[in-house]
Amino acid sequence: MRPYELIKAKRDGHPLAASDIQAFMAAYTRGDVPDYQMAAMCMAIYFKGLTTPELQAWALAMLHSGEVLDLSDVPGVKVDKHSTGGVGDKVSLSLAPLAAACGVKVPMISGRGLGHTGGTLDKLESIPGFKVDLPVSDYRRLVKDVGACLIGQTATLAPADKKLYALRDVTATVDCLPLIASSIMSKKMAEGIDALVLDVKVGSGAFMKSQDQARELARTMIAIGQGLGKKVVALLTDMDQPLGRAVGNALEVVEAVEMLRGRAPADYTEVTLALTAEMLVLAKEAKDVKHARERLAKVMADGSAEKKLCELVAAQGGDPKAITDLSRLPTAPQRASVPAQADGFVTGIDTEGIGLAAMALGAGRAKKEDAIDFAVGFTLEKKVGDPVKKGESLVTVHHRGDLKDVVARVQQAYRLGPAAPKARPLVVERLEG
Amino acid sequence: MRPYELIKAKRDGHPLAASDIQAFMAAYTRGDVPDYQMAAMCMAIYFKGLTTPELQAWALAMLHSGEVLDLSDVPGVKVDKHSTGGVGDKVSLSLAPLAAACGVKVPMISGRGLGHTGGTLDKLESIPGFKVDLPVSDYRRLVKDVGACLIGQTATLAPADKKLYALRDVTATVDCLPLIASSIMSKKMAEGIDALVLDVKVGSGAFMKSQDQARELARTMIAIGQGLGKKVVALLTDMDQPLGRAVGNALEVVEAVEMLRGRAPADYTEVTLALTAEMLVLAKEAKDVKHARERLAKVMADGSAEKKLCELVAAQGGDPKAITDLSRLPTAPQRASVPAQADGFVTGIDTEGIGLAAMALGAGRAKKEDAIDFAVGFTLEKKVGDPVKKGESLVTVHHRGDLKDVVARVQQAYRLGPAAPKARPLVVERLEG
Repeated sequence: MRPYELIKAKRDGHPLAASDIQAFMAAYTRGDVPDYQMAAMCMAIYFKGLTTPELQAWALAMLHSGEVLDLSDVPGVKVDKHSTGGVGDKVSLSLAPLAAACGVKVPMISGRGLGHTGGTLDKLESIPGFKVDLPVSDYRRLVKDVGACLIGQTATLAPADKKLYALRDVTATVDCLPLIASSIMSKKMAEGIDALVLDVKVGSGAFMKSQDQARELARTMIAIGQGLGKKVVALLTDMDQPLGRAVGNALEVVEAVEMLRGRAPADYTEVTLALTAEMLVLAKEAKDVKHARERLAKVMADGSAEKKLCELVAAQGGDPKAITDLSRLPTAPQRASVPAQADGFVTGIDTEGIGLAAMALGAGRAKKEDAIDFAVGFTLEKKVGDPVKKGESLVTVHHRGDLKDVVARVQQAYRLGPAAPKARPLVVERLEG
Repeated sequence: MRPYELIKAKRDGHPLAASDIQAFMAAYTRGDVPDYQMAAMCMAIYFKGLTTPELQAWALAMLHSGEVLDLSDVPGVKVDKHSTGGVGDKVSLSLAPLAAACGVKVPMISGRGLGHTGGTLDKLESIPGFKVDLPVSDYRRLVKDVGACLIGQTATLAPADKKLYALRDVTATVDCLPLIASSIMSKKMAEGIDALVLDVKVGSGAFMKSQDQARELARTMIAIGQGLGKKVVALLTDMDQPLGRAVGNALEVVEAVEMLRGRAPADYTEVTLALTAEMLVLAKEAKDVKHARERLAKVMADGSAEKKLCELVAAQGGDPKAITDLSRLPTAPQRASVPAQADGFVTGIDTEGIGLAAMALGAGRAKKEDAIDFAVGFTLEKKVGDPVKKGESLVTVHHRGDLKDVVARVQQAYRLGPAAPKARPLVVERLEG
């Protein structure tokens, strides 16, 4: 394996052998292939893409750059869900206990928020005492005994991805579909799962703005899953406005618990149930989606989903009383209304704008090192299609006295018009492989 | 200037501002832009190219990454010649004294041989005592007083090129036309010249295999020259077989001196005179090429060109007696013939194969650190179009007793057929700007 020859071959559109990709990635992980050769390779891939066999080899090589967790001693089918990220996306918080309450084993390694999107780990940490940095032995035990465990990325899983992502971030090779897909899949497959449900967000607040792009990303991830012998189902779901009404860490935990109680906004509830139902089918806990939905309705109604969440929180060091009594979660001392500036209907919400405004308020990070204020955030009083009167509250801002320019930013993010737009489907498309 | 933004803009096909290119190159030279970002940029340029204004800015930025020699105190028009490299290309050795004998000032910074092509500096060093690492003060004085000086690249001239070339060499971005052209032109323009003649080789032994490619390279270099306000003339010349009959350092010096005496092979003589005539016209030492050729014929016939070479050799520490008495140059102790394996005509010579065989014999370098044997090399007894009898000598090998597999390699490089091919023109095309 000569790195120069491989870069040149990719540049010239010749396919790379799986063994060469494996050797190249291993050498990069060790530091024997320097960053500048990998940067040239990534840019060549940006222009020339990867064939399906190359893609599968690339993801496999990233997966095997580190430890691959072995959960084979955990009985049952291990299924995780991965979302490509959005604003107000608290799906994992309710999906994990719902699936676990139905018997699915949910090993879930999540990320932190950066930029306009929040992160599951940050949301969980707003629960007093909750720990996301458990050792692998605890992770394995909790998946087995509780049925779910939500932890952060460890240094031993897919280390090539960590190194490669940092490089892509400074060489303009982040927005490259095969590299995005292999980054996600290598990390997910390292969790020790048997199957995966993908939530590919599509719309103004998502990385993929169009349905075609989202479908292409979904197909690419499914192809990688097939190469690794894992069943993958992808739902393309709407992210043209924030999901649900809560944006902000503790506020989203509240909404997630309310969802388990059947009292959350319809869009968030529907997307969560659709994704969780797919997990149940993959785990053979339901024979089809319809049956899965019935089981999910049951664990919501009888309180066992909420009970499972309390169990999970307690197992990860958190205070389960903060779930049963949501007032124990962090709350911001002040609230402010963002008044509508005209009469009309909400025709659109600049979702990224809302995410960035929440970040400015302290709910998210501009840089990795930034601290998060769990209590601050937004409650969206109006969503797309809702009628509004001038002066009526669009959003309640939960803050600590310094609103900065957040009111103006939220007003700018709301687009008002004379008529309600046509409703968009929440689950846009379903793919599997 | 944010490097990431510039890489992304180039990747997406948006033109870069000259000021951004300047800042990017300066930061790269200082080490503030790391190699991995430059590698990504070069690969993006490989795919997206550079517009003419970008190209001019890129070359200018490389030029100004270091010292630009100021020869404004040297009276007369300073003109250099640059060749894109070939086998048996000893043009500079006779062109410099010819031009200087006619009053042109020739500041010439040359390179060393690598791979299948030889280098002017190596050939000069086969003259006992000849020094190519003179300080800039001596260089300036010799251009002024002798009319020519041939030295090696210094660390202070276009340092960005040195750094960038090493990076391109390991990231598969060498064969990228705008990067090749700006590398050449930035080094040449740093010499302090007023005008430049380009010898763009075309054919099997050249970097540019086709006339279209060669023309494109010539046009790109001319555009850069125009951007820097310098007159550039380019001749596309044939490199489908070695130029002249001598391949090897001291052997080529002998042939170059014989050329000044009017006794060298016609192809080498013609290419040299065509290029030198262009220099005379650019330097206003002749009103047109015809007049220039008359002046050149005169300085050959009256011995003043050879005298100028002796003067130049002496000024650079070499022994001028080695020019007047060529037997003082290094010679190999043994000679061997490469016999033709059949009757017929020479229909083609794999020029790169001849260059590589000479390298294997010790006349060239496989790696930068390799030592050179000045004495060894080839005399081509047969060239394309010549009739041969089986057993007749194709090539005389000058060696030190170890022929290795050179005879077989030379035999393989010669293609014989039943009829002589149509003669190719030596000067294929002329461009200027």
